[in-house]
Amino acid sequence: MTSCSSSSPLRLGIAGLGTVGAGVIKLLRANADLLSTRAGRPLEVVAVSARERTRDRGVDVSALRWYDNAADLVNDPDVDVVVELIGGAEGTARTLVEAALKAGKPVVTANKALLALHGSTLARLSADNNAPLLFEAAVAGGIPAIKTVREGLAADRLLRVGGILNGTCNYILTVMRETGKDFATVLKDAQDLGYAEADPSTDVDGLDAAHKLTILAGLAFGQPVAFDSVHVEGIRRIGAVDQSFARALGYRIKLLGLASMTDAGLHARVTPCLVPQQAPLAQVDGVFNAVVAEGEFVGRIMIEGRGAGAGPTASAVTADLVDIARGNTIAVWGVQTSTQPPLRACPISSGEGAFYLRLMVEDRPGVIADITAILRDCGVSLRSMLQHPAENDSTPYVPLVLVTHRTSEAAMQDAVTRIDALTVVTDSTVVIRIEAA
Amino acid sequence: MTSCSSSSPLRLGIAGLGTVGAGVIKLLRANADLLSTRAGRPLEVVAVSARERTRDRGVDVSALRWYDNAADLVNDPDVDVVVELIGGAEGTARTLVEAALKAGKPVVTANKALLALHGSTLARLSADNNAPLLFEAAVAGGIPAIKTVREGLAADRLLRVGGILNGTCNYILTVMRETGKDFATVLKDAQDLGYAEADPSTDVDGLDAAHKLTILAGLAFGQPVAFDSVHVEGIRRIGAVDQSFARALGYRIKLLGLASMTDAGLHARVTPCLVPQQAPLAQVDGVFNAVVAEGEFVGRIMIEGRGAGAGPTASAVTADLVDIARGNTIAVWGVQTSTQPPLRACPISSGEGAFYLRLMVEDRPGVIADITAILRDCGVSLRSMLQHPAENDSTPYVPLVLVTHRTSEAAMQDAVTRIDALTVVTDSTVVIRIEAA
Repeated sequence: MTSCSSSSPLRLGIAGLGTVGAGVIKLLRANADLLSTRAGRPLEVVAVSARERTRDRGVDVSALRWYDNAADLVNDPDVDVVVELIGGAEGTARTLVEAALKAGKPVVTANKALLALHGSTLARLSADNNAPLLFEAAVAGGIPAIKTVREGLAADRLLRVGGILNGTCNYILTVMRETGKDFATVLKDAQDLGYAEADPSTDVDGLDAAHKLTILAGLAFGQPVAFDSVHVEGIRRIGAVDQSFARALGYRIKLLGLASMTDAGLHARVTPCLVPQQAPLAQVDGVFNAVVAEGEFVGRIMIEGRGAGAGPTASAVTADLVDIARGNTIAVWGVQTSTQPPLRACPISSGEGAFYLRLMVEDRPGVIADITAILRDCGVSLRSMLQHPAENDSTPYVPLVLVTHRTSEAAMQDAVTRIDALTVVTDSTVVIRIEAA
Repeated sequence: MTSCSSSSPLRLGIAGLGTVGAGVIKLLRANADLLSTRAGRPLEVVAVSARERTRDRGVDVSALRWYDNAADLVNDPDVDVVVELIGGAEGTARTLVEAALKAGKPVVTANKALLALHGSTLARLSADNNAPLLFEAAVAGGIPAIKTVREGLAADRLLRVGGILNGTCNYILTVMRETGKDFATVLKDAQDLGYAEADPSTDVDGLDAAHKLTILAGLAFGQPVAFDSVHVEGIRRIGAVDQSFARALGYRIKLLGLASMTDAGLHARVTPCLVPQQAPLAQVDGVFNAVVAEGEFVGRIMIEGRGAGAGPTASAVTADLVDIARGNTIAVWGVQTSTQPPLRACPISSGEGAFYLRLMVEDRPGVIADITAILRDCGVSLRSMLQHPAENDSTPYVPLVLVTHRTSEAAMQDAVTRIDALTVVTDSTVVIRIEAA
């Protein structure tokens, strides 16, 4: 509460003036009085750094001190806080953040890859130099997911955390469901609309969601998580036919990042999932994100909102700045982590669950007997089986869907390997995990 | 971050050992190690106060110092923080909280009535004595709604805040919708199940939701709000017939607390509302609560979870204790409020909206002409009209539903007064506001 009595400005150096950087400057200017009242002191941008000095960004930065080299912000004695909005796990962004922390300067960043890959090192640097590192904007954009998990649920032992963490994938899956169009067509439309990048792989292959899940899991379980131990699948193989089967079965397809702590250890994966149509997560459509957390005492919390975009991201970045101005900061993973190595998730094969398996099989007698024999031999018990008749004669293959009872990942993978080796099966089997959500 | 280096316990005095008080002690014991790691120091209960010393509460309090008089906790030099879980806007709870703040001791409370009615005085006491007052559990139980609004969305100018703030009402409305039963029957069932109090008026008449809305509005707009200026309606007059009309019109009925800031001032009301079936708030059923907040930059955030019960409430109370141990506290209304008188909401008659009006009218020619003439004379434009045929001959009255276009509250109220004066109309008209949610 003492910070409110201070009225000297908190002076900011912003690196990166893309959509988010320009958004932060716009917000700081639009809400200057409000922020000053809430933070107890003005928030003032004194210096910026970006690649192109002359580009029109919709905000006037001509009066601000300019650095061509972002790392120079650290050495500017007028810069109290470094705001890193460059992005990327390596290069300029990493150099800048590490240098600022070493210099004892608080850092605010929106950089999910950096935190996911170097969360252990950064936590140590932050603790050793007593320099707060805040990153609310790194997960789920404007949704205060990090604050919710690290502070709002700080009293409870969390069992599970995750959710819909990538708006591009959620948009594509929503449009596929609503229009019946296939993945490639909807991706193309999303690119034209600006909802997907020209190179969409970080989003559609699940990496972006995995970065965010790695961070959420670290916060929930109080220890940085090894990014390379998180199992990651994307949505490229989800077909229009899967959307149609999912509907018939009473589910919706969502790309979920889910981390849970069990007696065996941490499970953490990003995979397409079937979620019951009536579940709260199933209702979160389009570009929206949602974060769920489950604790022993609190039960289940879900928070949803806009997971990207200049406005929501600027809101999260600036909320971190208000926290710094108020003197309310916290160790990176919610506990002092100087000595904690990253926690490794268990291999996916050690998990269990119920599965949707979609095969493309020849439409002739005996095929189903061969496949069900494999399932029996692998100890995988079948809950239901659905088949669509061939829609035309151009292919001898028809889709066949198997829904299993709860079984081990290892047994399911064994069965899928054997099924994919059958000559009557074309393509590899599409596996979608079934979640109660 | 400095609080983490301190390892002396934070010593607690707990007043009130009902469901929540016992829940807090259970949580503190179950999660002692975890809390100590997260808070940077142990959280230790040293003293308690309650009315009956010998009652079995499911937790052993025999080793704790006992005070018959709660106010004595303040004078115990071993008590660092006073936890008020007695409840009620006056009496022991108020005396205790005010005494603790005057003594410069931090207070954590779950007391929504106290904050709603005395938020201005308490903020001044907290600021003047540099004693934090935290109350996360006062709104929406385990949902970190207060932290979300006051800190997570601190960067943004909020336009609107509110949501489903009373689990008892939401449970009753959900069961009415699902079963077709009437209010009185479902209330009785809810009382038998322990979801409603023997005296249900605080819940079903909307007062509890209004307390919470008053607090949320104060946080969102940075100034305590005058509770007696909030318009409050409950759910007693909602009939099975309204549930059935709502379904036919594509809506669900929810008791919503909504506060918005406009150029004309603050609008704040708790009223039953029709919410489109597909809206996120419409999906929040049973005893769950949901808080929505809308900001200029962040857009719309919704957070849902359990709004009551020992576990969720204990989680929120203890999260506040962790914040105090971490040294992260904040002024009551998010800004220094010493000089701020409570803000008064505009009278409900100054608002506008679309309305569902359900009348009970005689089923004979000319009635509808009389009613539509009144609407015309009051300048209220009709969007649709629905009528159920009489279900039996025991009454000459049938329900008639009018759905209006957007109009002023004043015009609507004028029309309803005139309609209710018609001899062909029995009972007063049931008014439900239509919200996009």
